[in-house]
Amino acid sequence: MKISRREFVSLAGASALAVPTRAWSRQSSRPAVDAARLRNRLERLSTHGRPPGGTFADGVTRVAYSVADLTARAWIIDEIKSADIAPRIDAAGNIFARYGGRPNQPAILFGSHIDSVPGGGNFDGDLGTFSALEVIQAVQAAKVQTRHPLEMVVWAHEESTAFGVGTAASRIVAGDLKAGDMERTWNGMRRADAIRRIAGSPDQIETAVRGQGAWHSYVELHIEQGGTLDKAKVPIGIVEGIVGIHRYDVVIEGFANHAGTTPMGERQDAMVAASQLTLAVRDIASRRQGRQVGTVGRIEVEPNSPNVIPGRVTLSVEFRDLSEQVLRELGDAVQARGAGIARDTNTKISFALASTNMGMPAAGGVQAAIGKAADALGLQSQRLPSGAGHDAQQIAKLCPMGMIFVPSVGGISHSPRELTTWDDCARGANVLLGAVLELDGRDSV
Amino acid sequence: MKISRREFVSLAGASALAVPTRAWSRQSSRPAVDAARLRNRLERLSTHGRPPGGTFADGVTRVAYSVADLTARAWIIDEIKSADIAPRIDAAGNIFARYGGRPNQPAILFGSHIDSVPGGGNFDGDLGTFSALEVIQAVQAAKVQTRHPLEMVVWAHEESTAFGVGTAASRIVAGDLKAGDMERTWNGMRRADAIRRIAGSPDQIETAVRGQGAWHSYVELHIEQGGTLDKAKVPIGIVEGIVGIHRYDVVIEGFANHAGTTPMGERQDAMVAASQLTLAVRDIASRRQGRQVGTVGRIEVEPNSPNVIPGRVTLSVEFRDLSEQVLRELGDAVQARGAGIARDTNTKISFALASTNMGMPAAGGVQAAIGKAADALGLQSQRLPSGAGHDAQQIAKLCPMGMIFVPSVGGISHSPRELTTWDDCARGANVLLGAVLELDGRDSV
Repeated sequence: MKISRREFVSLAGASALAVPTRAWSRQSSRPAVDAARLRNRLERLSTHGRPPGGTFADGVTRVAYSVADLTARAWIIDEIKSADIAPRIDAAGNIFARYGGRPNQPAILFGSHIDSVPGGGNFDGDLGTFSALEVIQAVQAAKVQTRHPLEMVVWAHEESTAFGVGTAASRIVAGDLKAGDMERTWNGMRRADAIRRIAGSPDQIETAVRGQGAWHSYVELHIEQGGTLDKAKVPIGIVEGIVGIHRYDVVIEGFANHAGTTPMGERQDAMVAASQLTLAVRDIASRRQGRQVGTVGRIEVEPNSPNVIPGRVTLSVEFRDLSEQVLRELGDAVQARGAGIARDTNTKISFALASTNMGMPAAGGVQAAIGKAADALGLQSQRLPSGAGHDAQQIAKLCPMGMIFVPSVGGISHSPRELTTWDDCARGANVLLGAVLELDGRDSV
Repeated sequence: MKISRREFVSLAGASALAVPTRAWSRQSSRPAVDAARLRNRLERLSTHGRPPGGTFADGVTRVAYSVADLTARAWIIDEIKSADIAPRIDAAGNIFARYGGRPNQPAILFGSHIDSVPGGGNFDGDLGTFSALEVIQAVQAAKVQTRHPLEMVVWAHEESTAFGVGTAASRIVAGDLKAGDMERTWNGMRRADAIRRIAGSPDQIETAVRGQGAWHSYVELHIEQGGTLDKAKVPIGIVEGIVGIHRYDVVIEGFANHAGTTPMGERQDAMVAASQLTLAVRDIASRRQGRQVGTVGRIEVEPNSPNVIPGRVTLSVEFRDLSEQVLRELGDAVQARGAGIARDTNTKISFALASTNMGMPAAGGVQAAIGKAADALGLQSQRLPSGAGHDAQQIAKLCPMGMIFVPSVGGISHSPRELTTWDDCARGANVLLGAVLELDGRDSV
């Protein structure tokens, strides 16, 4: 039976039986999230991984698979259970919880992650995760019956701190699983053991992989992590797509020698070459038109002693842009500059493309649903790309994807000073709720 | 009774009673070191701290107070004992061994160290240490009786790897001892406990301090660690003095932010500022006339993640020159450049003068004795400054000091590729022996 797209959207306060009715965005009385509860949960989550003696303002270090991550996960599972929905942990350690909907309908998925970078903030991932629980609780409270099951997700591991780039748990769900992946080690821990720690099943890891069409659609609420919305004073961002990332591992080999006895003209100083390369990356990314960025974020110097000329430097060069073509051009440019720097400094510089993350457009239908939800709430919105990678990028391979951004004060993130106002948090959560209900009225996106 | 300066120099093969005679440098048959034994000992020493599976060419990591240092010290003490002289360990862990001489005469001291930087070579310190033992054994073998006791020393800890700059064990002997010095920690080890590991007595550390005139003179044989002698093909360097060192700890505070979401123009990238500063140090040290050098050898980046703009960088800036005035001018110049870089990059840069090591001239009399010894052996010599710091710099505060340099192939040191030919090692050891005997003929230097 084919059902028309707005036929089954439920009303706040409607009877227990779902009644074909107007779209959510055209309702005058709508379900809404509990903003106080959302804030309270974010504050409680912040205690897991808080620096000793610190406050909410001191942020968190809650790296995936750490003790802080384990206790936070245990607590969030309790919170989900207290909302009378049953959490399920997949083989990769992702937490899913499903509510309502009709049999044989694909679920609408929404959520985010709760792991952080070292010295991170209290909103990146956390807001989208607890807003997802709010969506389900708001629907429960309003006794709305949706056509599609509503499914929240807490992705087990999003930040690339743990096990490095390309190891996020959502990648496994999207089918990015290679032989030997479970044998990777990080901090002396095998990945299989890490996943076991969070109640995943590394021995059946392939059961975490989901197929095309596993969900009706995926929506993720997230802080912008940049300053565009904050500067424009616009509360809601509708993400057009997630930028691609090309990351290079660069090795610079000079010659380690005594800092006191080697004349300036006879040095092969790998740090001097690294400095020139760092400035070249900035120059290449800044000079061209567009929104591309380039960063040297990691540097290791050997032997790293004040009295020894650096003999070897390894560093990361990262470029981000929506266009693969632009990314390739930036990479070519920095390698050409590197060749010149190597000649000038009498060093050897080698580049390896360590990882690429394809840019991913957001589905037009999900963007439209988010726009409608914002409009219905009287909230101004604007479209923008995401400069950061997100789990949404992976799930976009399985179903239509969209993302909602809320302002980051000062554009700060991955920092204890990361901040989104409580009002903006609540606005974002209500737009997520609205977008999910709007999508529920659509057969296809 | 006043004794004329050449009156008591002993002859090789002279009778057991010291006989007033001609200076050592004018003897036709002279005591000489055992070059094969010297080489053999250097090769055996190299096994203490050798990388697993490596060879002599792979160098050593024998950081002071490490297990490799402990086993090497135990072995060298056995070697000294096997030469029928009694080693004595002072409160700082320095090993002394004294041979011969007349009562009430101050000893002539000579020696070096056996600790290394991580990934160091087999000659820095080692050559001077075992050549000192050769000097005593050559004098024993030739049955020479010297007027002054001959005293060899193995300084416990010279490289600043352990406990950082300003903690060398020879500094304590020279009286550089401050409250709390024994409480310093490094690698989780208290300095007092480190000294206890090598059989020192941290609770009576002040007994290691020696006064002015504690020795007649001090001579140290060492590899040049620069390329001057190797390039000039001159086997013996007579050190004019040891350069001073001004070392700055620099902290650059930018702002750590997401590498994907922060536009290029809005960054406060501490690594970009550090790169500009590194190039400024090179520029300042290179541009001016003279032999000064400037190095950024140590860099720590926070949070040091490919996807985060560096928020904080700490680095070391080191300048070396014989002139304090030049050192001050170099420091002023880099701080002026730093202020401009901070403005341009929207970062804060602070400089702290972390340590200064006063330049120290070698005594004219010791230089002359070294020159005579080289001449007598038919070895070409040249005068040059030492760009590296040495224990000699400290002992110069207590008695006339001089140093002998031998060529470092390619000017390489603080590296497994550090190399001095066995012939040059033997030449240096024989010049040390000659200089010691030459000095023995002098009341004052």
